[in-house]
Amino acid sequence: MDMQGIFISFEGVDGVGKTTQVERLREYCEARGREVVVTREPGGTPLGATIRQLLLNGVPQSSADIAPRAEALLFAADRAQHVAEVIRPALQRGAVVITDRYLDSSLAYQAGGRELTAQEIRDLSMWATNNLLPERTYLLDMDPALSHARLEHGEDRMESAGDDFQRRTRQAFLDLAADEPDRFRVIDAGKPIEQVWAAIESDVKGLL
Amino acid sequence: MDMQGIFISFEGVDGVGKTTQVERLREYCEARGREVVVTREPGGTPLGATIRQLLLNGVPQSSADIAPRAEALLFAADRAQHVAEVIRPALQRGAVVITDRYLDSSLAYQAGGRELTAQEIRDLSMWATNNLLPERTYLLDMDPALSHARLEHGEDRMESAGDDFQRRTRQAFLDLAADEPDRFRVIDAGKPIEQVWAAIESDVKGLL
Repeated sequence: MDMQGIFISFEGVDGVGKTTQVERLREYCEARGREVVVTREPGGTPLGATIRQLLLNGVPQSSADIAPRAEALLFAADRAQHVAEVIRPALQRGAVVITDRYLDSSLAYQAGGRELTAQEIRDLSMWATNNLLPERTYLLDMDPALSHARLEHGEDRMESAGDDFQRRTRQAFLDLAADEPDRFRVIDAGKPIEQVWAAIESDVKGLL
Repeated sequence: MDMQGIFISFEGVDGVGKTTQVERLREYCEARGREVVVTREPGGTPLGATIRQLLLNGVPQSSADIAPRAEALLFAADRAQHVAEVIRPALQRGAVVITDRYLDSSLAYQAGGRELTAQEIRDLSMWATNNLLPERTYLLDMDPALSHARLEHGEDRMESAGDDFQRRTRQAFLDLAADEPDRFRVIDAGKPIEQVWAAIESDVKGLL
């Protein structure tokens, strides 16, 4: 039986519980006999991990900041490799590919308050991926005050950033979801984990 | 006195004598009281040097090739940083910036025989540099048989590549020069060094 690959992304600010829901979705799909590939950005390939180190730590022996366009191009290179090395081959095998962050994170994080526009970042990503968009994107949405509290209890955190930044990023994600209602499902991640999962499950059934 | 910055690139296949002529031009400009910044691609910044290592050596612990789009984005990231960190600040100080290779090398080398078009590579570079093109590009042009002989006598060599590749790359450079006759000067680099320099000198006088 020939299975069709399915590409699903999870988005949202840090601390909203993406990791937990990604694992629930993996178990759900595997229980239905699907091959599942769980991956992430940035850093979903060895090249991507190297690029991520550059972006996080800067360049040894250099005091210069990474320029905004160079940064955007490095994120795009990570994504291009991720798609070519991991995501497309898995989809071609018929797997369910679940990625923790994808293009929308670049739009929500990079485009806020820099010299680049969201449209430029999007064009770059679409070129990098040869126009590969997820069939479904679950945006885990929560009041920043709540996700902040969760982070302080020990979940993973990519960076330290003020509440105002978290609020703007959350709004950027919501705006993206409003622009593409067919692809996005906005999930209230302030509810208990079981209720969050139930919302995802009731939607994902239709895709499998 | 306010001096205007001038941006000059040298292009051509390996072994045509770019390094020698770049140095002659540096001396010529400095003798006329100009600040000169000599630089190169790939690798004109610490970030660029790190990217260059990735491109030349691949990623440790990975057997996967760097995907064509990821490669193009990494070259573009190198160029974006080079422009932002080195070239634009120098031009703003009024310096003469001389670069050994720039955008045209990407077009001549990357676009040949890959899945990407020259127009895609060009668009990417123009975005990376925020549309910064040299005022003058000297294309040092020579029969590949001659440049090959020079290389065997010890000049620097980026990569080993067959004669057919050299011939196609030379032709790609000549086509680029034909497309932008105002920016390019094609210099016969098969002549003795002094005559090559005389051809450059007679042209560059008008720019300074």
